[in-house]
Amino acid sequence: MNFLSDNAYGCWPEIADAVTAAAAGPVPSYGADALTAQIATHFERIFARCTIAFPVISGTAANALALATLCPPHGAVFCHAEAHIAVDECGAPEFFTHGAKLIGIEGEHGKLTPAALATALAHQIKGFVHHAQPAVLSLTQSTELGTVYTPDEIAALSRLAHNHGMKVHMDGARFANAVAHLGVSPAAATWQAGVDVLSFGATKNGAMAAEAVVFFDPAAAGDFEYRRKKSGHLISKMRFVSAQLDAYLTEDRWLTRAAGANRLATRLAEGLEGINGVELAHPVDANAVFVWLPDALAAHLRRGGAEFYDWGPPSGGRTLIRLVTSFATPPEDVERFVALARASQ
Amino acid sequence: MNFLSDNAYGCWPEIADAVTAAAAGPVPSYGADALTAQIATHFERIFARCTIAFPVISGTAANALALATLCPPHGAVFCHAEAHIAVDECGAPEFFTHGAKLIGIEGEHGKLTPAALATALAHQIKGFVHHAQPAVLSLTQSTELGTVYTPDEIAALSRLAHNHGMKVHMDGARFANAVAHLGVSPAAATWQAGVDVLSFGATKNGAMAAEAVVFFDPAAAGDFEYRRKKSGHLISKMRFVSAQLDAYLTEDRWLTRAAGANRLATRLAEGLEGINGVELAHPVDANAVFVWLPDALAAHLRRGGAEFYDWGPPSGGRTLIRLVTSFATPPEDVERFVALARASQ
Amino acid sequence: MNFLSDNAYGCWPEIADAVTAAAAGPVPSYGADALTAQIATHFERIFARCTIAFPVISGTAANALALATLCPPHGAVFCHAEAHIAVDECGAPEFFTHGAKLIGIEGEHGKLTPAALATALAHQIKGFVHHAQPAVLSLTQSTELGTVYTPDEIAALSRLAHNHGMKVHMDGARFANAVAHLGVSPAAATWQAGVDVLSFGATKNGAMAAEAVVFFDPAAAGDFEYRRKKSGHLISKMRFVSAQLDAYLTEDRWLTRAAGANRLATRLAEGLEGINGVELAHPVDANAVFVWLPDALAAHLRRGGAEFYDWGPPSGGRTLIRLVTSFATPPEDVERFVALARASQ
Amino acid sequence: MNFLSDNAYGCWPEIADAVTAAAAGPVPSYGADALTAQIATHFERIFARCTIAFPVISGTAANALALATLCPPHGAVFCHAEAHIAVDECGAPEFFTHGAKLIGIEGEHGKLTPAALATALAHQIKGFVHHAQPAVLSLTQSTELGTVYTPDEIAALSRLAHNHGMKVHMDGARFANAVAHLGVSPAAATWQAGVDVLSFGATKNGAMAAEAVVFFDPAAAGDFEYRRKKSGHLISKMRFVSAQLDAYLTEDRWLTRAAGANRLATRLAEGLEGINGVELAHPVDANAVFVWLPDALAAHLRRGGAEFYDWGPPSGGRTLIRLVTSFATPPEDVERFVALARASQ
Repeated sequence: MNFLSDNAYGCWPEIADAVTAAAAGPVPSYGADALTAQIATHFERIFARCTIAFPVISGTAANALALATLCPPHGAVFCHAEAHIAVDECGAPEFFTHGAKLIGIEGEHGKLTPAALATALAHQIKGFVHHAQPAVLSLTQSTELGTVYTPDEIAALSRLAHNHGMKVHMDGARFANAVAHLGVSPAAATWQAGVDVLSFGATKNGAMAAEAVVFFDPAAAGDFEYRRKKSGHLISKMRFVSAQLDAYLTEDRWLTRAAGANRLATRLAEGLEGINGVELAHPVDANAVFVWLPDALAAHLRRGGAEFYDWGPPSGGRTLIRLVTSFATPPEDVERFVALARASQ
Repeated sequence: MNFLSDNAYGCWPEIADAVTAAAAGPVPSYGADALTAQIATHFERIFARCTIAFPVISGTAANALALATLCPPHGAVFCHAEAHIAVDECGAPEFFTHGAKLIGIEGEHGKLTPAALATALAHQIKGFVHHAQPAVLSLTQSTELGTVYTPDEIAALSRLAHNHGMKVHMDGARFANAVAHLGVSPAAATWQAGVDVLSFGATKNGAMAAEAVVFFDPAAAGDFEYRRKKSGHLISKMRFVSAQLDAYLTEDRWLTRAAGANRLATRLAEGLEGINGVELAHPVDANAVFVWLPDALAAHLRRGGAEFYDWGPPSGGRTLIRLVTSFATPPEDVERFVALARASQ
Repeated sequence: MNFLSDNAYGCWPEIADAVTAAAAGPVPSYGADALTAQIATHFERIFARCTIAFPVISGTAANALALATLCPPHGAVFCHAEAHIAVDECGAPEFFTHGAKLIGIEGEHGKLTPAALATALAHQIKGFVHHAQPAVLSLTQSTELGTVYTPDEIAALSRLAHNHGMKVHMDGARFANAVAHLGVSPAAATWQAGVDVLSFGATKNGAMAAEAVVFFDPAAAGDFEYRRKKSGHLISKMRFVSAQLDAYLTEDRWLTRAAGANRLATRLAEGLEGINGVELAHPVDANAVFVWLPDALAAHLRRGGAEFYDWGPPSGGRTLIRLVTSFATPPEDVERFVALARASQ
Repeated sequence: MNFLSDNAYGCWPEIADAVTAAAAGPVPSYGADALTAQIATHFERIFARCTIAFPVISGTAANALALATLCPPHGAVFCHAEAHIAVDECGAPEFFTHGAKLIGIEGEHGKLTPAALATALAHQIKGFVHHAQPAVLSLTQSTELGTVYTPDEIAALSRLAHNHGMKVHMDGARFANAVAHLGVSPAAATWQAGVDVLSFGATKNGAMAAEAVVFFDPAAAGDFEYRRKKSGHLISKMRFVSAQLDAYLTEDRWLTRAAGANRLATRLAEGLEGINGVELAHPVDANAVFVWLPDALAAHLRRGGAEFYDWGPPSGGRTLIRLVTSFATPPEDVERFVALARASQ
């Protein structure tokens, strides 16, 4: 019963097959191959728009390279105080941007609001040489707390950002889970709501190591290629990353499997409801459940074989824990977990 | 007949199989899995020594991370003027080291000599605050021009470097080809000759995207882990990189296949010998042939289906070209190439 | 009536004289001159300890160079959320440290508490590769809000920092004002309370452009010299910076003049007390007064010739303003300001 | 007899006076004062053109900030192999540009030629992602070896650079000496010959610590202001830097005093001519003499009280030495030096 993270699971069989199939014969290196060319076609279909997309092998690289392309060294990136880029990347955005400043903003359930963004902007004055200059708004979708912005929420934030001359980045490490939850088109969830650049995640939802940085305005890609090379992220045998993305983006598998993970999370949340002392901390929109458990219950579940992370220290006899489901989480693990929890009553 | 680069070829079937086999089930992420632990065992056997090794996914990342661990921002890295780190990484070492200076030194056949290194050191004064401070000697093995340093040559250069308080890095993107050529133990070719850190390449010789940074003194690894994370090179599903290295390092396949590539290069060189106007530019130690071809012959070969790079502009009716062989180059391609060349006489 | 900042005023006559006197004749450049050597003697006397001190020409340079010496690129610097290094240096610490992260912590009256620091440390986990690693605690003395830490407060914070393996930096742009207020020895206010490195400010209190970075443990200075050179802060004619510091540090002028500025601030605060709608926001320990003024009163004062900054937007008919006094603020300006304010009643 | 460097001398009396005169009263800080505004007027007159100029306090800062404004992190700066930016700034250009690459090119007497530049450009391919991208040509005027480019030489190099999409930077730490030698207008020596940005030096020729970065196209200044702030080079009491430049630029003193220094160098060269074993290494255009001295003669001169630097190790019984003259070098020191040398015959 592994609910530690969606990256604890391996990859789709279709992706292993695609990688194996890509192994034969010589092809041009560094992304000049046919499989890599194919990725553009996929994204054009998925986003109903001509984009430029760059495969990379980690979400941290995707985010940091995207931000560095949008933000000068003296710029500021506004994001949620608990955003992955702010908390869990050991300063990768600062490294790639050569020292830009991340401004963390508080917000309920992992989501920013226009009001909070406006307040932060009022303290970071445009043209005042002593202040890091507002350059990027970065939103995580789905958020670090398992919630999902609606297109309207994104649009309102993007409007404010654009009005301040900023660009909008979306950290979509779990973009598939968000779109599956929203039931809208990927276009509606991104560029139609004002997103300029998307870190499109595939790894957590079933690739081995494959993400793409998608610029909705190809001209905005600027010197991305040089930054990717200079950071060691231009893979010589690119075919092996592109093969993963090609399999991932074929048909709607990326959405149906994310929907499956979401359903398991919902089932977990529903299954835990009503247990004495158990309290959901955030709406379960995507594939993560944040829930307060009595410490005795948490210990009981771990003794029963469940693995999950505490999300902070114990507090008053209970602890906030995180449960993450994935494309490969066995549904029976979910049922066992729920049964184990209910049996403890 | 693709002789463009060894990275134009795919991967070993054993590596595709290993990656597929690694796909099932949940395992700890970020390198805490059993396959990654296994890599240490392989390297201990291969180098007859306890080392610390970090998997990464590109040679540029391996080199740049290794150099950044060894060299402060105000340091200088001495290398051959045509070294990959100096010429072909778009400034990755400068990026990762936060601005260290690469001092390119000329040397015949892609190799540095102690005399040339000593001269360079005389111009980069230790303790003089206006000069970047000597910190690292980086050697490429096999070199960018297809030659191989002997252990004695390495030892002489390392001694000089160590005497100046510098560390020795080896860019081993084609380390397998070098060791296969030398016929000595990997230990004799590295730490026994004074090498402190090795970029151990696997990609060019048959992995998809897998290299390892090997510190022969584990204590010297310092903050490597943070640098790897911060640069987006800590892969969440590390098992898929480690599976490649595990298959690569099992038995002696990595050496026998490199030896095969070397033999094809030697065969190319021998086959071209004696053709009118053809002249070898460098000894063919490893898997690359640098040869002057009359321009008419080069054109003839390309018309016949051969692919290879010019290594500089035409000069006096002839051009220096590079031919690279790999673990997967069909021997019949080599024979066809030679036959085509000889038929032009 | 200029209360905008202490840097709006020029320099002491003794400092202009010292600079003029230093102009004659050839002397060794880059700090090998006798005047620069003299600075060490001054600091040894003042801090009752052998230190190593580096002259620089701006407070931002002093802070950023000090932090870069103490903090690796993957490190975290803890400071008050309104600290100058966090808010008003356009990301200089991030630039000099090559991307370290500043963790801003809230605290009343511009001061950190051990409890708040402990909470922040609990979220920045030592040895967890995804987190920027705790490296430095930076305290501002006097603070950005005109208050002063007591030696006991500093000692408690330093102890906590040292227990977490961190170093303690003090931004002493207004160190003279703080020491003058405390009435303790400079040693008691710094290294005896656990401070490892001090940005010793002279500019705001009467130099032209002169600060010093003082390491209380000379061994901790590490590669400071190279960082200073590499950032363009090693002045060739260093005598002109050292001459300023020499005059500044001669006798107790630096403290008596800071005490004078403090007295003017206290007089301002006392003079404004009791005026309808006027409310002090923070204790007036040093040379700055933060006070809420009714908007009509602020406008009245400005019409009367007073210059000062708003410290945030108007709120409910009143605005928080900042008044700064200096070594050269005419006492009659203070009296005129108070009289003008009282006359508005 | 100090011929070590022009920065071994102090400052003009007019500059000490100007700094003293600037000390009184409150003025706006950070360059919003009247003296700083005055600098623009001076440069407009001197260069017969509207420019934008930023005062800084060191030549290294001027060069590194200028280059960082012109060159992206993945860019390449072409310069002479012995250029100050390449050899004597401890990697400052790499730090400020965030890792750009300096390509050192050999050239007789410290000067680049279009042919050598063209060869270097042929190896640094535009649009090839593995290569640092050509971005800036940097020329030193007068050069590190005491020679001076003619306007025609500059124009030919600039044309080539511009044709390759590069910008042209001039390191004018000794710009005054060059213009005094050429006898042309400052405009003819810079923008009329294709120079885009000039590091205008004043320190070596008589200021305390004052240089200016002059952009001939104000639009090209880009985000210079933020880079200056972020690197700690925005001085709060800017009046004291601007006062130096104001005095320096008043009338033609900056040229007449540089001409004086040049004359002393010429006199040194002439005085040494014909002495047995003495050989001039480079034409003496500006204020530096590079001359081979028999080792016995060099020792004799030092015993007699002369100070100068060796410019490399002894070679065959003689050593290349450098003699630098300045605005304040006593003419009698020159005569004594010559007499001492001739007396040794």
